Formats: sequence, structure tokens, C-alpha cells
Amino acid sequence: MTTVAAYAAPSAKAPLERTTIERREVREFDVLIDIKFAGICHSDIHQAREGWGEAIFPMVPGHEIAGVVEAVGSGVTKFAVGDHVGVGCMVDSCRECENCVAGLEQYCLKGMVGTYNALDKNGEPTYGGYSQKIVVDESYTVRIPDGLALDVAAPLLCAGITTYSPLKHWNAGPGKKVAILGMGGLGHMGVKIANALGAEVTVLSQSLRKKEDGLKLGAAHYYATSDEATFKELRGTFDIILSTVSAPLNLDSYLSLLKTDGAFVNVGAPEEPVALNLFSVIAGRKTLAGSGIGGIQETQEMLDFCAEHGLGSEIELISASEINEAYERVLASDVRYRFVIDTATI
Amino acid sequence: MTTVAAYAAPSAKAPLERTTIERREVREFDVLIDIKFAGICHSDIHQAREGWGEAIFPMVPGHEIAGVVEAVGSGVTKFAVGDHVGVGCMVDSCRECENCVAGLEQYCLKGMVGTYNALDKNGEPTYGGYSQKIVVDESYTVRIPDGLALDVAAPLLCAGITTYSPLKHWNAGPGKKVAILGMGGLGHMGVKIANALGAEVTVLSQSLRKKEDGLKLGAAHYYATSDEATFKELRGTFDIILSTVSAPLNLDSYLSLLKTDGAFVNVGAPEEPVALNLFSVIAGRKTLAGSGIGGIQETQEMLDFCAEHGLGSEIELISASEINEAYERVLASDVRYRFVIDTATI
Repeated sequence: MTTVAAYAAPSAKAPLERTTIERREVREFDVLIDIKFAGICHSDIHQAREGWGEAIFPMVPGHEIAGVVEAVGSGVTKFAVGDHVGVGCMVDSCRECENCVAGLEQYCLKGMVGTYNALDKNGEPTYGGYSQKIVVDESYTVRIPDGLALDVAAPLLCAGITTYSPLKHWNAGPGKKVAILGMGGLGHMGVKIANALGAEVTVLSQSLRKKEDGLKLGAAHYYATSDEATFKELRGTFDIILSTVSAPLNLDSYLSLLKTDGAFVNVGAPEEPVALNLFSVIAGRKTLAGSGIGGIQETQEMLDFCAEHGLGSEIELISASEINEAYERVLASDVRYRFVIDTATI
Repeated sequence: MTTVAAYAAPSAKAPLERTTIERREVREFDVLIDIKFAGICHSDIHQAREGWGEAIFPMVPGHEIAGVVEAVGSGVTKFAVGDHVGVGCMVDSCRECENCVAGLEQYCLKGMVGTYNALDKNGEPTYGGYSQKIVVDESYTVRIPDGLALDVAAPLLCAGITTYSPLKHWNAGPGKKVAILGMGGLGHMGVKIANALGAEVTVLSQSLRKKEDGLKLGAAHYYATSDEATFKELRGTFDIILSTVSAPLNLDSYLSLLKTDGAFVNVGAPEEPVALNLFSVIAGRKTLAGSGIGGIQETQEMLDFCAEHGLGSEIELISASEINEAYERVLASDVRYRFVIDTATI
């Protein structure tokens, strides 16, 4: 066991504070990672405040982890000391079910082991990336390619894969019109990735406040959803709408923006149920779907794709003491576009 | 113009009664059809009672029409006098938009012309199949193959195509587990068709009342949705759930019965919005979709498929004077499985 410094929420009502946690010894297939950067994802806040249901405390959030390999177990073949690596939302899964075998570990039928706010196979709580080091099985560790700086790579481990996976699954590419709903941490990566995949990208954001950024990041068009004219003008336009919004939406309005056979794919997850008129999917044979992160192999594919296309996250680097303030700013949509913690400051 | 007898609803609040309507002269590409049988679809009731919004009165419902060609226009090449033909939910569309060109006339971007409760391109109201004759453009008329009796063929024009089209689109077939939700007019055809396509079929019905019928029609399994154990036992089971139910559903419960990447497809259309927790589609990358009838070419394909497999509807033949009573029985789910009007009794 190694004692490392971390930032943790002691309870759902309390701010995060500095503490120490124990990391397990490096086992045969483990990688000890010296964490350099950890992104702040909106879902960290959902979980730390129990917005998605009962959680495990103390909680060390963080599932956008980038670092350097400090030690490896005797059986490790994928990584060596000094390698740049990342860890995303999961650190284990059953490895045996049809989904794990198919590389869809995120949909493990026995439930993946989350990077934090979860119990591992020994029943021990997992702790995330707001900490100095982490020990992860090499099968749930990915390589960050040369050419991707670790700070802008960190958010790819969640925001990148969460947008890349559905864009690939629903065939975003040349000739396709893709709308990215929400221009935040996930959304800005959605714009970059959909554009790099060759799709014609439109941002649908509450206001035009971030329009200049959106166009710079790869969007061809930018509309405000607070303007009712948007819904008239764009009726029947999109093959895919990728919703990164975690506030409740008027789904019927957004479904009207799809072409026949179009798909509205949720990666944002509102805490409350939403209402839907089923005619909105019947007319035009439309799909309302969802997607959760991506598998390990696909996460590696995404990192390689981002390195090839020079895509990192737009970040605001903060020190650990600014985490609580950053949470408030995330809730106020006041971040361009991802807070990343410099873990040397923990 | 030809005056023909029909049954019509004079208003949303009134029962249907015998009346006469005018049918247009036979134009160059028209077929005059001597209607023999007309099915009663639940959507006839939704529309006649304005459950789906403002409607056009007097209304002659009926979009499950089977009859014999009595005359053809000079330009007609597809049909000859004496042919057995059918007409479904639409009698025209723009014929020019990308959906019409793709054979998806039901999703015509300018709006298909409904067989009733619609205005045709000349602004004249359309009247449906609860009548003795109808005049329809040959391009919106389909052939009822030899070997399919007209009475059991009539309901295929809506109930058949409405279930066939999504089952084909979502790849029901060998190796696939398909649930048919609701064992009514649509549902019983869904069972027959999914079984004929080679899928393993499960009926999910409120009770086990119709279990014997379901198994006879092609289901391998039959479960009651009123029994909570059903939802535990069948969790993660189906590739496709085809919902024929037009009452509001607990969508989250049904989505939990899907496998990863499974699709819940609505062809029933509740009058009220339904609630949905978006986690239900995010977990397992599931699809909530809808489908409306099918295109003309696909409707012909469906009729040919049904003839080849000997699939007709299970019907209760009624006389026109029993229509109002039949409506009440449909609302009470008291029909096995489709009322068909013998239009000779109008």
C-alpha cells in the first residue's frame, strides 16, 4: 500500500478537501501511474453531490486521468516505465460477458468497475484522478500517443470517448449533417471530432455567446436554441443530433430537427425524467438513443485519432485548491471548455 | 362523380351512421375499386373522436381496404378489371421529395395524403374504406395476391405493413429475439410476421388471457406485463421490442428488457406524452424509435410475403350496423383480433 495525497468529498453536502488515500500494491498486471493531470467532468459533480443516487464517501472524483507510468507489475506487457498513459471512467469489468468480449466493457453485463464511486472486485472502494497516483490493471489503461500533451489529453478520457463513440456508431462522416447540442466540455470535443470525421457540423447552444469558438473548433453553423426561429429554420435538417446537455430538454422540438431515419443521441444525462410524445419518433422513423463512454479498444482508437488530427481539449488549468470554485463555474456553464487539475498542486 | 353508400362520423362526439358520399370520376391513372372488406383500426377511433387532434367531418374512416377492380383509367398499366387490390393509409403523396423517391411515401416531406381525414391535392376531403367504392391512383394501390382471401387480407393494409416494416428495418430474423408488446390487431400480426421472418417471438401482454392464441400464431413465449416477475426474468433479453400499445407505458421498464444495442420500436401511438429516464437508453446504447406504416413498394412486398407464408389476419367479420359497437369493443380490447366490415352490408 502507498499513501498518496488526494482531494475528496467527505459527504454529498460538503466541499472537497485535501486528504490522503491508500493505493494498492502493484500486482502482476498492474500499472502504477504518476498522475499529472485530471479533468473535471460534470458527472463528477453529479456523483459527488449524489445527483445520480446514493454514492460512496469519502469520494475522490476524477475519471479523466493522464500521467506517466512509474512502475509496472511483472506480467505487464503493454506498458513500460516512462510511458504516457490515460485512465478513463472504468478500471475493470467482468471480462467474460458477451459485451466485454465484444470490446464493449462499458456495458459489462455484470457492471463495469467505475474509476471512483465504485467497489472493485475485492469489495474495496475505488478512488479517482484527483490524486497523485493510481494503480490500474494494464487492460484498463490506454496509451496517450506522442504529440498529445498530457494536459489537453486528460479530458479525452471521458469527454473525447463519450462523443467519439456515438459519432462513429451512428456513422458521422462525409455527407452527414451533425448537430452538437451543448457547447461545453463534451460538446466542444464533439465539434472537433465530428468535424475531423468529415461531417458538416452545426452547434446548437443556448446562446451565441460561444459562436466564435464553435466556428474556430470546426463548426460550419452555430444556432441559439433560445431563439424559436432556430427550430423553424432547421426542421428536418440533421442525420444525427448528439446531445451533451444534462439539463431536461424539450425532446419533441429537437426530434423535429432530424431527417427521416435520423438519430438523437444522448450522452448528457438529466437527473430528472423527460417527457416525450411518441409521434415525434413515429413520424420519420426517428431514433432516440443513448451512449455511454466507449470500450477500452475504442478509447485507444479515439486517442490515436485525436493525435493524428491534432485534437486536444480546450482547457483551463487549475490548482487543486480551486476545485470547489471550479465546480460552481461548471454548474454555471462558465468554463472554456474543461477544467483540468494540475495534480502536482494537490 | 358517383354516389356511394358509406358509414361516417358526423362529428367527434357522434356515433357513425349510414350516409352517402361522392367519389370522383375515374381519371387517367385511377382505379375504381369495388370495396369488399374494410378493417377497423384503433386509429380509426383515435381520429373519429379527435384523440389525435382536430379532424375533418363528416369522416368516413377505414384504411384497411380490400376489393376488386371495377374500372380503370386509360393510362392504368398495373391493374385490370377483376384484379384483387388493396388500399392502405395513404392515397397520394408529393412523389418528388427524397422520401417519396426512396419509396418512403409514408414519410413524404410535404405530407402524404391520408386515405381519410385528409385533403387531397385539389383540396377535396378524402373518405376511407367504410364505403362501397373508392377511386385511387394506381400508384397508391397494391395487388392482393391469389391465395390471400380478401377478408383476412384487408387488415394487412395497415396492421400488416405497420408491423412488417419495422421488423424488417430493425432486422428481425433468425437468431434474433423479438418481443411483441400488445396482442391486439397489430400485435397478432406482429407475432405472425416476426415468426415467419425467423425470429424467436415473445408476446408481452397485459394478461395471459390470449396466451393460447399467441402460441398458436407463432410465439415461442408469452408473458404477462401485469406480473412484476416478468420484468425481472426478461431483463436484457430482447434485440427488438415492437410496441403496438397505444396506452401510455412505463418506457424505462420496457427498455430494461432490451439487450445492449437493442431497439424499442413504437408503432402504437399514445395520445399523451410519456416519461423517460434518459439513463434507460444510455446504459446499453439502446434505441427508442418509432415507425409509421410503410411505403407502397414495401406494402406490396409485405402482401407477397404474407401470401407466400399463408398469413392473414385473424378476424371477426361484422356488418356495417355493428361498427359503433365494434368501436367500444376495440377500446375494451375485446376483439380477436380485427373487426372487418363486410361492406356489402353498408
